[in-house]
Amino acid sequence: MIRTNLCDILDIEYPVISGGMVWCSGWKLASAVSNEGGLGLIGAGSMSPEVLQEHIRKTRAATSKPFGVNLPLMSRDADNNINIIEQERVPVVFTSAGNPSKYTQRLKAQGIRVIHVIANEKFAVKAQEAGVDAVVAEGFEAGGHNGKEETTTLVLVKQIADKVSVPVIAAGGIASGEQIAAMLCLGAAGVQIGTLFALSEESSAHINFKNAAFAAMEGDTKLFFRKLSPTRLLKGGFFSMVEEAENRGATAEELLEIIGIGRSKLGIFDGDLQNGELEIGQAVSMIRKLKSVKTIFEELKAGFDLAKTRL
Amino acid sequence: MIRTNLCDILDIEYPVISGGMVWCSGWKLASAVSNEGGLGLIGAGSMSPEVLQEHIRKTRAATSKPFGVNLPLMSRDADNNINIIEQERVPVVFTSAGNPSKYTQRLKAQGIRVIHVIANEKFAVKAQEAGVDAVVAEGFEAGGHNGKEETTTLVLVKQIADKVSVPVIAAGGIASGEQIAAMLCLGAAGVQIGTLFALSEESSAHINFKNAAFAAMEGDTKLFFRKLSPTRLLKGGFFSMVEEAENRGATAEELLEIIGIGRSKLGIFDGDLQNGELEIGQAVSMIRKLKSVKTIFEELKAGFDLAKTRL
Repeated sequence: MIRTNLCDILDIEYPVISGGMVWCSGWKLASAVSNEGGLGLIGAGSMSPEVLQEHIRKTRAATSKPFGVNLPLMSRDADNNINIIEQERVPVVFTSAGNPSKYTQRLKAQGIRVIHVIANEKFAVKAQEAGVDAVVAEGFEAGGHNGKEETTTLVLVKQIADKVSVPVIAAGGIASGEQIAAMLCLGAAGVQIGTLFALSEESSAHINFKNAAFAAMEGDTKLFFRKLSPTRLLKGGFFSMVEEAENRGATAEELLEIIGIGRSKLGIFDGDLQNGELEIGQAVSMIRKLKSVKTIFEELKAGFDLAKTRL
Repeated sequence: MIRTNLCDILDIEYPVISGGMVWCSGWKLASAVSNEGGLGLIGAGSMSPEVLQEHIRKTRAATSKPFGVNLPLMSRDADNNINIIEQERVPVVFTSAGNPSKYTQRLKAQGIRVIHVIANEKFAVKAQEAGVDAVVAEGFEAGGHNGKEETTTLVLVKQIADKVSVPVIAAGGIASGEQIAAMLCLGAAGVQIGTLFALSEESSAHINFKNAAFAAMEGDTKLFFRKLSPTRLLKGGFFSMVEEAENRGATAEELLEIIGIGRSKLGIFDGDLQNGELEIGQAVSMIRKLKSVKTIFEELKAGFDLAKTRL
């Protein structure tokens, strides 16, 4: 593939990061990605401090390469998880869903690299001002939680790369080497890939969830909950329930009641396709079968090389 | 820039097409784009047969290069406009919003190139089966009318290029040479650019509309009318009216009543920012001032060259 300044900053071989996805990104996935030369992230959003500590230690046992933790700043255990990250001397932290100024300087003072996820220009500038080492610019096509502006990756990455001086990591809709090359054309220094790794052998998602994803066609995901926190879902029982509610103009309160508690665990980790919340990106329709992280990296590299010959 | 097989098919120098946008794409814009080495399209969607004939003749008088007409197949004057296109021996027709099998063979029998606009995989395959010379794959970020699947350009173009054997023209969100290079990485043979040319000196859109667009920030467009035909609008009086109605769950019938008749002419051509329908793409926030088509082409070429150095 190609080395960018992001590779130097993170001490990795390829500028490819696996997203820290709830119920998917445990130590197995994170260490597999790091072992292939990318940066594997542990998704702390669904972890208690004890569970996070266990995953950090297992990741370290499974790879000698750098890895990271994704931490949604608004999550209940954010403060305690930050303590664990510091204690365990995790090399890189990706923060999201919250104010980047809260922990950035504290973490950086301990030599931890800090990267913040944004979905619009305003927060990209704020993150840079907070002193982050890079930003992830995540577009509308991404799975799970999503920006209110609905700016797509193609438009967002170009604008953010023109706006900030820190490296920009493109995210949302990327599941091939050709798309990695496309993002570098726009000025990105690397990519964060979610859906493709969420459906890999090493992901801790349930096989029911993976199989439903492999059967999904283009157009089988949709963004919901614009009145709360926009979230992209895969078609299924819960999808239909939410679609019906939104079509009749359900209020934020009604939607909160429909969501309830524990839906994403039920769908992604327990494999309940009827009642679970199946968070996935638009790239799902590009992914047709279960593959190892090793195979995925080989295909990403081949796609990148192919794209280069096209220019 | 670069020559692709699309350049050979259309007999043009650069694989860049200006969208045939209602109230923007008259003979001035079409001939200016063709004169710069791209393919300029006349937007027949807002034209009677008489007006279309006049624009075709004026385009031909203003350029010796190939040009085309965009024809929404569901428009009231489609049959009569097809007759005009044949009489005037227009070299290329872009069809959209309708069944590509209706006119494709008839036009091709007369040596006219036919290209169909699609927003999903299913219609790309149908268009290829109908015998089109190429397809335009238009993503969620595009202005005006839009696909129901909401697939973004980054995801759609990759998938369509992998699926069909005819050349794929990427559209939606493209307003820079870097993005053209990105689309070629995905396997596209060229691009169709709307918003950037709609805001050019040669576009027939009202200066009020252009100035409102130059002031728009990222996140200032939004897709509405999912219950009818999804349409991307720029913030303004009409935008707020529709947003309010959709938030309370307005039915398709109620929305049709709100739209009324002649709103896009009022907004785009007459410059009424309060009551007019302002159709525009997400790329609007990348465009900050009025430029000639000549300057736009110079900048597209420079951006493309820059992107090449990044791989």
